[in-house]
Amino acid sequence: MTRQLLALVCIFVIAPLTAAEGVPRARDLGIPFAGTPGKLNAITDVPGVTVGHVTLIEDLADGKAVRTGVTAILPRGRQSIDTHAYAGWFSLNGAGEMTGTTWIDESGFLEGPVMITNTHSVGAVHEGVIQWRVAQGAADYTDYYWSTPVVAETWDGWLNDINGFHVRPEHAMQALDIASSGRVAEGSVGGGTGMICHDFKCGIGTASRIARIDRSDYVIGVLVQANYGSWELLRVAGVPVGQYLKEADVLPENTDYEQGPSSIIIVVATDAPLLPHQLKRIAVRAALGLARNGSIASNGSGDFFVAFSTANEAVARGIADARITAISNDSIDPLFDATVNATEEAIINALVAGRDMAGHEGNQVRGIDHGKLREILRIHGRLDE
Amino acid sequence: MTRQLLALVCIFVIAPLTAAEGVPRARDLGIPFAGTPGKLNAITDVPGVTVGHVTLIEDLADGKAVRTGVTAILPRGRQSIDTHAYAGWFSLNGAGEMTGTTWIDESGFLEGPVMITNTHSVGAVHEGVIQWRVAQGAADYTDYYWSTPVVAETWDGWLNDINGFHVRPEHAMQALDIASSGRVAEGSVGGGTGMICHDFKCGIGTASRIARIDRSDYVIGVLVQANYGSWELLRVAGVPVGQYLKEADVLPENTDYEQGPSSIIIVVATDAPLLPHQLKRIAVRAALGLARNGSIASNGSGDFFVAFSTANEAVARGIADARITAISNDSIDPLFDATVNATEEAIINALVAGRDMAGHEGNQVRGIDHGKLREILRIHGRLDE
Amino acid sequence: MTRQLLALVCIFVIAPLTAAEGVPRARDLGIPFAGTPGKLNAITDVPGVTVGHVTLIEDLADGKAVRTGVTAILPRGRQSIDTHAYAGWFSLNGAGEMTGTTWIDESGFLEGPVMITNTHSVGAVHEGVIQWRVAQGAADYTDYYWSTPVVAETWDGWLNDINGFHVRPEHAMQALDIASSGRVAEGSVGGGTGMICHDFKCGIGTASRIARIDRSDYVIGVLVQANYGSWELLRVAGVPVGQYLKEADVLPENTDYEQGPSSIIIVVATDAPLLPHQLKRIAVRAALGLARNGSIASNGSGDFFVAFSTANEAVARGIADARITAISNDSIDPLFDATVNATEEAIINALVAGRDMAGHEGNQVRGIDHGKLREILRIHGRLDE
Amino acid sequence: MTRQLLALVCIFVIAPLTAAEGVPRARDLGIPFAGTPGKLNAITDVPGVTVGHVTLIEDLADGKAVRTGVTAILPRGRQSIDTHAYAGWFSLNGAGEMTGTTWIDESGFLEGPVMITNTHSVGAVHEGVIQWRVAQGAADYTDYYWSTPVVAETWDGWLNDINGFHVRPEHAMQALDIASSGRVAEGSVGGGTGMICHDFKCGIGTASRIARIDRSDYVIGVLVQANYGSWELLRVAGVPVGQYLKEADVLPENTDYEQGPSSIIIVVATDAPLLPHQLKRIAVRAALGLARNGSIASNGSGDFFVAFSTANEAVARGIADARITAISNDSIDPLFDATVNATEEAIINALVAGRDMAGHEGNQVRGIDHGKLREILRIHGRLDE
Repeated sequence: MTRQLLALVCIFVIAPLTAAEGVPRARDLGIPFAGTPGKLNAITDVPGVTVGHVTLIEDLADGKAVRTGVTAILPRGRQSIDTHAYAGWFSLNGAGEMTGTTWIDESGFLEGPVMITNTHSVGAVHEGVIQWRVAQGAADYTDYYWSTPVVAETWDGWLNDINGFHVRPEHAMQALDIASSGRVAEGSVGGGTGMICHDFKCGIGTASRIARIDRSDYVIGVLVQANYGSWELLRVAGVPVGQYLKEADVLPENTDYEQGPSSIIIVVATDAPLLPHQLKRIAVRAALGLARNGSIASNGSGDFFVAFSTANEAVARGIADARITAISNDSIDPLFDATVNATEEAIINALVAGRDMAGHEGNQVRGIDHGKLREILRIHGRLDE
Repeated sequence: MTRQLLALVCIFVIAPLTAAEGVPRARDLGIPFAGTPGKLNAITDVPGVTVGHVTLIEDLADGKAVRTGVTAILPRGRQSIDTHAYAGWFSLNGAGEMTGTTWIDESGFLEGPVMITNTHSVGAVHEGVIQWRVAQGAADYTDYYWSTPVVAETWDGWLNDINGFHVRPEHAMQALDIASSGRVAEGSVGGGTGMICHDFKCGIGTASRIARIDRSDYVIGVLVQANYGSWELLRVAGVPVGQYLKEADVLPENTDYEQGPSSIIIVVATDAPLLPHQLKRIAVRAALGLARNGSIASNGSGDFFVAFSTANEAVARGIADARITAISNDSIDPLFDATVNATEEAIINALVAGRDMAGHEGNQVRGIDHGKLREILRIHGRLDE
Repeated sequence: MTRQLLALVCIFVIAPLTAAEGVPRARDLGIPFAGTPGKLNAITDVPGVTVGHVTLIEDLADGKAVRTGVTAILPRGRQSIDTHAYAGWFSLNGAGEMTGTTWIDESGFLEGPVMITNTHSVGAVHEGVIQWRVAQGAADYTDYYWSTPVVAETWDGWLNDINGFHVRPEHAMQALDIASSGRVAEGSVGGGTGMICHDFKCGIGTASRIARIDRSDYVIGVLVQANYGSWELLRVAGVPVGQYLKEADVLPENTDYEQGPSSIIIVVATDAPLLPHQLKRIAVRAALGLARNGSIASNGSGDFFVAFSTANEAVARGIADARITAISNDSIDPLFDATVNATEEAIINALVAGRDMAGHEGNQVRGIDHGKLREILRIHGRLDE
Repeated sequence: MTRQLLALVCIFVIAPLTAAEGVPRARDLGIPFAGTPGKLNAITDVPGVTVGHVTLIEDLADGKAVRTGVTAILPRGRQSIDTHAYAGWFSLNGAGEMTGTTWIDESGFLEGPVMITNTHSVGAVHEGVIQWRVAQGAADYTDYYWSTPVVAETWDGWLNDINGFHVRPEHAMQALDIASSGRVAEGSVGGGTGMICHDFKCGIGTASRIARIDRSDYVIGVLVQANYGSWELLRVAGVPVGQYLKEADVLPENTDYEQGPSSIIIVVATDAPLLPHQLKRIAVRAALGLARNGSIASNGSGDFFVAFSTANEAVARGIADARITAISNDSIDPLFDATVNATEEAIINALVAGRDMAGHEGNQVRGIDHGKLREILRIHGRLDE
């Protein structure tokens, strides 16, 4: 049955280069953030990083609806196949899944893409990544195909027919194929299609920061799939916005809304040369950016963060006599600061990009009201105008 | 193409109650082990634990061959759906995959079965477990379907067409459906079908021990999927057997044998009441039993161990006022000893159960020669006769 | 030499019951926080918890100055000797020391007090705790004296002659002896005597919250020794206060101020029945409260958090047939929320309690200007008046 | 009182270069081990590593006796002060203390010596290391003194008046001062003076292995302070020796012997260039060598392992543009093998070096009978003659 439904699914592949045009981001609304963003204020400001979204939106029979997808982040674009990347990860609250993490801990390397999808599609995407790798031809420099792909998830069962298993391996392959540099679509795209944060429509968000260390500029790029939190706890730019909202401002009418397991996946990319244990430190800092927006990492929230560096390319290709470079621990704070700031903004970008959506069994979710949000910030002296 | 091949696959479902009959186990050969085993000397000596193997063996066109499968271990049989089990896990060497572990750490619970398969079938089995859960009807007491199944793997690409993706979700569902108590088939069955350890044919092995604490008897049951190690390092009952073998005793003729990524998955079950942090301690001890057989946890070896307890049933059903019992830390040593001993024997059971096998692209692996093994132990005064 | 200096040291033991009187706390200034505090808004709102400060302040010859001390937190007062407490801990950034943590992980128990002092006095306090335990007479129920005390530290070398080793084992013993319930002195007392946070004089702070779960009220109590952060990053009640300050508002004149290694120790107590792995989750949440105040967990910051529960008293005395109770994971969120909120406030309490101090080699640090702080909050609509 | 007793203590500083002469080591007895040792078969085969023992043996009034000490291991001799060393650590069972480990995890560096002493002397040694560092003059390249020394312990309360606190800071300083390269004294010296393993007198042991990788030879050196295990579980060279002993072969007559908390500290040094996460992998492998000798990591055993590399010297001095080298993961197995083998032998060296000792309150412990041990191995075909 799953097969048959699949044939009906209309796939909107939202091209990163055009989708974001004309859509206001958090800064466009005047929300203030600390630090200096890169050119696109996106994870793709880190040279080489590519992102691909496959978005599945379709209304099926019997009130069933597909509102889901998959997002691929490649550290070095298609070259990620043969040139790995030093990486580290952190689980702030393990109520969910990010596969492939034990090998990151053990080897220090992310050996391929990071994939983000819905909770029940982890298996399909996992298989898709391996199939895609096999389809590329020869095995990588280790003489081996990726066997432990990194696949993370958040739960979209309120808007999406999650037990319909609509994401298939080929969707993962497609997301990998179309991944590109440049602007990154935000909101209800890719893995973020059916996601909700602070009870508002949410999904994918991204941001970046420039960190200056010893006269060199490095980029920190962050991409989130945000699906966590309750409206009461929402904080934006430090203002406890949730305290100034009423339930009627948030919840859709005529619907028995109940937030399911919430979560957030945060991917941090950098071109700064960092060793694996240092990248784990970067991943941990994502928690501090998340906290600024009001998260308490609630029981059912799967909050997983992974960080990778695109430096040390020769080493990552397994070249035997390659020399490694690394920023010293004593110089690392600007990267920590950049990570916290970019994470804070990427989440608010995901929130601001959310639009009203109806989905599975008629369930609805609202996008946050930009005007009301701005008004609350204005009265707190926290709006750039 | 994968689909088409699948139709040709001949599935041998080896029924646990009959398969092991007549096949000598390590003890039957006179190999000595410490401690007192349970009635079946199997993980199923722990009341409630069930095991199901689905074995896929088929010769395809062009020299391709299917030699793989999936094994399901359920802490409380079918009741595992609604009654979770306290659990803990340990990664001795993270070169592989065991999904679902962050939620074990976070919640303290294993919320369903442990599945073991080949490296590239993790995705299919992951999807299969969720589909099976959905097919059972109502969600569990948390009002939720399992979203983060525990699926572990080892690599069978020498004997099996691993990039053919022959294990499908329905095979996982079948393994769950047929899981039963009683005797457990060993060797080339289920997930262990194509596995190799110490360069000999290997696969599934099991053993158990009785641990007496404060006048109560508890059972430790272990099941392994053994796929690790080189013949030079093999130790049996403390005897460095590998030192007394020659390459010609081990490697098949006329084949360019090369051991790929090796690994071992160890599942420890007990009816002793232990808290999650204590079960993590049990999982760690599996490493000490493994070490006795010569493992150095080599770079490419994914060595993951998970332990669960079937006690505290009421708590595990989410009954609010349920009281928990736990063995005190000061009394725990007999369980540690039992875990080390049962792990040591389960691995040798897997080794002894191995028979010569030819598979993918004509590749071959030998089963260990029981006579030669006995002879080496005899000259070291380590054979019970 | 150390010995001789010690004889000159004048020890001010600030009695908890009186020291805090008349000193405004953060709430008294109108700073708003979420959640409902306990009666004292202190860690001692958790029944049984006692706190003792020994404060060492003395001006020595040659510009040397003593500005340090030690703080003891006992989960069950003097009864902590024989009745342990389930516990968990978390290292947000490991640039420092908290001893005794491996046994917390392994056993699940905190077997005595938590001590906080300066970085170079960890050894003396460690010895003092064991000496105190030995001096109490019989060994505990495990027939053993505490061998792995929990001693944490932050660095006070700007104001204190830290290489003079002025804290001696007897000071630790004294802090344990005088520990009491009731009000807790804040600011420059005990281990916090010479501490600095966000470049202002800081030290000890405390707060508490009531969490309602299933019609029961539980208390979360937090005590911090705050010594982290730069003024530029300071956030209070969500307002980025640091952005509205100038260097001249913060740094003392005529002094070559340089912040050394910064850190924060956070102790979370609760009477809610939680298992060790759940208490680790509580400890992790302290990071989210810390982040609200602007921390980026900078490289040199030793940020260690420990949480314990005073419930399950019988089990903690090693009574063999004692039954354990635990709050279910599904009900735990109010405790997470309470931990984040109490941590946020405890830190601001430490900041607000800071007063101008001159110390070692004439070095100076200012207390934050309450009027200016209030003014900044007022213009952001974040002052309760 | 402690002070006064100290004056009476007679300090035997056993000079490494002479003490080991004429004393048979495990190999001298014909016990077989795998792998090729370095020249001295000691941790000091790693160039630059120095070891210093301070041994305290004295009979006091009232049956009290001092049988304890402290051992210092310096990665780069006195240069360790300014030139740190990449490091990693592992806790197999956390029932004890190894301070300074969070900073190893966080920074990747061991910033000074590793010290080993008795359980209740951790504090004194901790203070001694900092005092010694301060006494050396200028702070290190980070412009800071070591604040988080690495101090580990095992429990010697059967033979030693452990609550007498006989190890003082100056003993730690002395061990650091006299540390030298060359032969390393084993058995009842330094921190190992009062230690017991498998119920026999034990203490310090060391061994080394040469690992060949890509035509380069690297050294793995191991030093243990062994104080773990029961005689029944003893295995030597794979032979379950404990099964062939009777209680009368082990326990001293006329003494109410009871093994207290047991433990083992294992220090692994190498000149192979490894990154911090790789050194953690090395530390983990020590557990596999330990397991070969029969350890089940019992509840009260504090089993801590730390590994460091003397390579990458320029980086470790904080030179900004220094390039790092590292062995690839794919080439690392010979180092794993060497670590397991050297650990196995170092422990048996500690056991073999043990001699009968009487101590505190007349308590006694026997050294293992070399003749009987050889006889048991001989009948198992495991003696080189």
